Amino acid sequence: MRLTVAQKIIKDHLSIGEMKKGTEIGIRIDQTLTQDSTGTMAYLQLESLGVDKVKTKRSVAYIDHNMLQTGPENADDHRYIQSVAKKYGIYFSKPGNGICHQVHLERFGVPGETLLGSDSHTPTCGGIGMIAIGAGGLDVAVAMAGGEYFITMPEIVKVELKGCLKPGVSAKDIILEILRRYKVKGGVNKIFEYWGEGVKSLTVPERATITNMGAELGATTSVFPSDEVTYEFLKAQGRGSDYREITADEGAVFDEEFVINLDELRPLVACYHSPDNVVPIGKVENIRVDQVAIGSCTNSSYRDLMRVAQILDGKTVAEHVSLTISPGSKQVLNMLAENGALSKIISSGARILECGCGPCIGMGQAPNTDGVSLRTFNRNFKGRSGTPSAKVYLASPEVAAVSALTGYITDPTKYISEGDINLPKHFLINDNSIIPPAEKGENVEIVKGPNIKPFPQGKPLTKDIGGKVLIKLGDNITTDHIMPSNAKLLPYRSNIPYLADYCLLPCDSEFPQKAEKFGGGIIVSGFNYGQGSSREHAALVPLYLGIKAVLAKSFARIHKQNLINNGIIPLIFQQEKDYDDIDVMDELVLENILEQMEGDTIVANNVTQNKRYTLILDETERQKEILRAGGLLNFIKSR
Amino acid sequence: MRLTVAQKIIKDHLSIGEMKKGTEIGIRIDQTLTQDSTGTMAYLQLESLGVDKVKTKRSVAYIDHNMLQTGPENADDHRYIQSVAKKYGIYFSKPGNGICHQVHLERFGVPGETLLGSDSHTPTCGGIGMIAIGAGGLDVAVAMAGGEYFITMPEIVKVELKGCLKPGVSAKDIILEILRRYKVKGGVNKIFEYWGEGVKSLTVPERATITNMGAELGATTSVFPSDEVTYEFLKAQGRGSDYREITADEGAVFDEEFVINLDELRPLVACYHSPDNVVPIGKVENIRVDQVAIGSCTNSSYRDLMRVAQILDGKTVAEHVSLTISPGSKQVLNMLAENGALSKIISSGARILECGCGPCIGMGQAPNTDGVSLRTFNRNFKGRSGTPSAKVYLASPEVAAVSALTGYITDPTKYISEGDINLPKHFLINDNSIIPPAEKGENVEIVKGPNIKPFPQGKPLTKDIGGKVLIKLGDNITTDHIMPSNAKLLPYRSNIPYLADYCLLPCDSEFPQKAEKFGGGIIVSGFNYGQGSSREHAALVPLYLGIKAVLAKSFARIHKQNLINNGIIPLIFQQEKDYDDIDVMDELVLENILEQMEGDTIVANNVTQNKRYTLILDETERQKEILRAGGLLNFIKSR
Repeated sequence: MRLTVAQKIIKDHLSIGEMKKGTEIGIRIDQTLTQDSTGTMAYLQLESLGVDKVKTKRSVAYIDHNMLQTGPENADDHRYIQSVAKKYGIYFSKPGNGICHQVHLERFGVPGETLLGSDSHTPTCGGIGMIAIGAGGLDVAVAMAGGEYFITMPEIVKVELKGCLKPGVSAKDIILEILRRYKVKGGVNKIFEYWGEGVKSLTVPERATITNMGAELGATTSVFPSDEVTYEFLKAQGRGSDYREITADEGAVFDEEFVINLDELRPLVACYHSPDNVVPIGKVENIRVDQVAIGSCTNSSYRDLMRVAQILDGKTVAEHVSLTISPGSKQVLNMLAENGALSKIISSGARILECGCGPCIGMGQAPNTDGVSLRTFNRNFKGRSGTPSAKVYLASPEVAAVSALTGYITDPTKYISEGDINLPKHFLINDNSIIPPAEKGENVEIVKGPNIKPFPQGKPLTKDIGGKVLIKLGDNITTDHIMPSNAKLLPYRSNIPYLADYCLLPCDSEFPQKAEKFGGGIIVSGFNYGQGSSREHAALVPLYLGIKAVLAKSFARIHKQNLINNGIIPLIFQQEKDYDDIDVMDELVLENILEQMEGDTIVANNVTQNKRYTLILDETERQKEILRAGGLLNFIKSR
Repeated sequence: MRLTVAQKIIKDHLSIGEMKKGTEIGIRIDQTLTQDSTGTMAYLQLESLGVDKVKTKRSVAYIDHNMLQTGPENADDHRYIQSVAKKYGIYFSKPGNGICHQVHLERFGVPGETLLGSDSHTPTCGGIGMIAIGAGGLDVAVAMAGGEYFITMPEIVKVELKGCLKPGVSAKDIILEILRRYKVKGGVNKIFEYWGEGVKSLTVPERATITNMGAELGATTSVFPSDEVTYEFLKAQGRGSDYREITADEGAVFDEEFVINLDELRPLVACYHSPDNVVPIGKVENIRVDQVAIGSCTNSSYRDLMRVAQILDGKTVAEHVSLTISPGSKQVLNMLAENGALSKIISSGARILECGCGPCIGMGQAPNTDGVSLRTFNRNFKGRSGTPSAKVYLASPEVAAVSALTGYITDPTKYISEGDINLPKHFLINDNSIIPPAEKGENVEIVKGPNIKPFPQGKPLTKDIGGKVLIKLGDNITTDHIMPSNAKLLPYRSNIPYLADYCLLPCDSEFPQKAEKFGGGIIVSGFNYGQGSSREHAALVPLYLGIKAVLAKSFARIHKQNLINNGIIPLIFQQEKDYDDIDVMDELVLENILEQMEGDTIVANNVTQNKRYTLILDETERQKEILRAGGLLNFIKSR
């Protein structure tokens, strides 16, 4: 059978089920990664699974999120993760070594292998020919313990790239164009597989920009073939032996396909407050910017920052603009410091931040009130920057750097006429900030700071469940809405009781109090509930608050699985008009839930209005078992 | 008359009074500086003074404190300061351009001139032969408006430096040695003037390390002669024409003197929680460190970071240590990026933070709970790091860098045998992050964010004043105790009502509530009340809370003036045993205060205990006038 790249890798790792579109499959996981904001929880869960050592080929724990350290919580969490990593056979990437996805691409990604990461941008390593998927921390913990990872066998979308990018247009514009077409929920249960002559013109870091931001489509993942370009990159990283060619068979059948003519592509900008709110740059040109922020796992590679240095060279950042640069990794920063590019960037008046996620996750550099911020990042959800009234635009490093100089959103193709950056033959390799695990883990002591609290656990389902509808939400509710994430809250990612006071606050300032008053209840929402970050906290915190079920028009993939993993039932309206019918504070009951779960639909009884709604329980038998058990940990322990 | 350096400069600027030790003098101020955490308030006060343009030779507004920007407040404040600076004839140093004292030394300091700064470490520029004094924001505002600055004519202490430092021993050890001898209140109303052959062996940045941390002695300031070494430094900064030789006349009379033999000096460490808690390094060697932090206005110069790069070159930071580097200025960072030193630092695994105050003011990089942090900074007050339980040690860059490698506090003289860093013939000069003021300020619009609230103003004194003793404190209470300063509170420096909820919390968790409940009252304290930072907020916030008077055994200089400037009466116990007598919640009344203020003592009536205490009102007639008027602003406006 002729297979696509994605199908080949899935086939190689298929452990349960068949590669039949839309059915559940379990795949073996070769590698895992965690970052620190989801990692503490994942490792607490790993500890509770009772294994001695991870069963994966390679697991890496990164510190890249909570690096401002405005209180002791972060350093405590870092030490906890470092000690767990040492004990359980996990590599530990120290704070300052870089963003998980950038470092993983550089130092660990292997074409043809599978990677599961507790960060929604894990698909970055699709740029090097991996099937790399973002998941909740518990799924990653289970994978470290040797368990399969379950997904719906996705449709494979062929993205044919024709031609070659013009100077000033870059990989970021390719993914912005796809977001313009597919929107933030157009990729659900799909893998975007890149194909065609245009692929060859893109370096691995450029491919990774595309697969990275493919997460914003809601896709399962994105993948590029592993080809000569991949080989050159791996060789330059001193890892030529990790190379394996993987390309789609001629005649492989895709489920869907479309073409992008790179020659015709022009710079694009995603306007606030959604990454799919994409317009040609001409529509926003000359908007005055207060801040320009370059970096994030999308655009902080050697290629990107060399390009930025080239643009800034000998010039000065506009008087009214604060330009920040967050390099993606120690390797990138070190090379720029070696070759003089960093000096050019500093000379221009840019502010050099640490290698890490930084402003992309609202970890510092919040813009001024009502400020305009132009960023090379992947998300611009309202408030994510730390300033609720800020207007955040997303664009390429080229757009960002040129605009920082002019002080207004500016089309870089008017200024850039030369070709692109060539990657070096040899990257600077120095892994001294990556700490290998102990040879014998049993003697390593786990260090837990006072901010690390036990995580909540679900209870097995009994006869009826129900409660009041505590909130009724619109479409595209993100995990940033459900569990806000900013510089003030991120330090408490190991402390669910603390975070509970902030649950859904951007939507209803009294939600936590209501949940407490009524002993939990039910959430009702529109389409694409739970898009964005993979944070399991968006399920753990509702679990802690007693949320029993979420009724929505549709769900984002990772979040739906996080709900199931934590024993909260995700239900889809069979009739969308029923959504209109429900009022906040209605009392809903799902009677005889265990019996009802035998089928594919659940009837909810609206006791207040004396109405009944049919809801789709779109779950596999395994997922139903998890829900019955009150979550994945109970399910695994019961077996 | 034969004069010392300090006397020469004071004489040149004397406007009111006579140079008679212990009497009040008013001096003309040539230059001012502000930083952003005290600056917003200073500029609000400047605005209220109704001048069109600053009257100084040079005023500079720096952004170096609030650079994490975890919410919109900081960026709003930066924009406010930038707009005020442009309007009122003030140079504006953008965030990222560096720490005020480091940049001022590099680009603006002029030997023989006076500098008043709203930061307690303003004496740094004493390293270049200025009389540079830290003061409250209002004093700086008045100086910008052309007013004199008033001080008690200090005693001049001659510090004779003999010989030359041995490799591995550095300028930091000189000031630590003086702190060991004089303690944190040994310098009150004194100027430490450096003299002797040892002076010549110290570069300007080394001298500045000493004058900088001289602030910890409680001194009025510290000063070095302006000599050949000063000239070389200024020439290398492209400012040879700013040079003027200023040395003490032969036979000049000092009030006090002591000698330090540099040859005999060995590395020293200040143990937690006071910069005068100094011990020879041997006493703390082999203590395991969790964090090493290099930077701050004390130790972030080109010389210091080149030395650090030399030590780290080719080595790796210990696995369990987080090493952070905060360069002092864009000039320093840019030169290190140019000459390869930065690459060496990055290679070792250090974390590169922004050019700014950073961890020194608790603005990020809080250590772990109970963590040991070794820092090249100037203060280690309890909790200042952001982690109340942390143990913070202060030492030289040499001690810090070597210890980061070994992971334990380590004597660098065992590792360093070579000589010191030579300063370059030409520093890299690029002032493009310093924005000059508008030629015509009248059209510049001031931009105020919603976090900028009006400041409280005192009321003229009337017949009786009094209230309950709300708190009774011990010795050496710092402005960090009175108005805590950390990453969570610093963004609110323009918002006194918000800060009021945190006043004196480290000493009494209910102080703000008590103050509110009783409508203000009186503070009682031991020796050296108000040491540390110059922040006027430690007076503005008590004023807002209704504090009428502070009774103490003694006061720190800047804070005492801040109290007077804000109309709060500072009173000194004539009988120290009266301090023991007073209980919290006693009701004190200062009857007929206006009449009593005619003399030098005030009687306080303890209504609760039916006792009377005599208190010294150690103020000049001018200061009394300010108190009667209810603060300096009222006083100035009334004239």
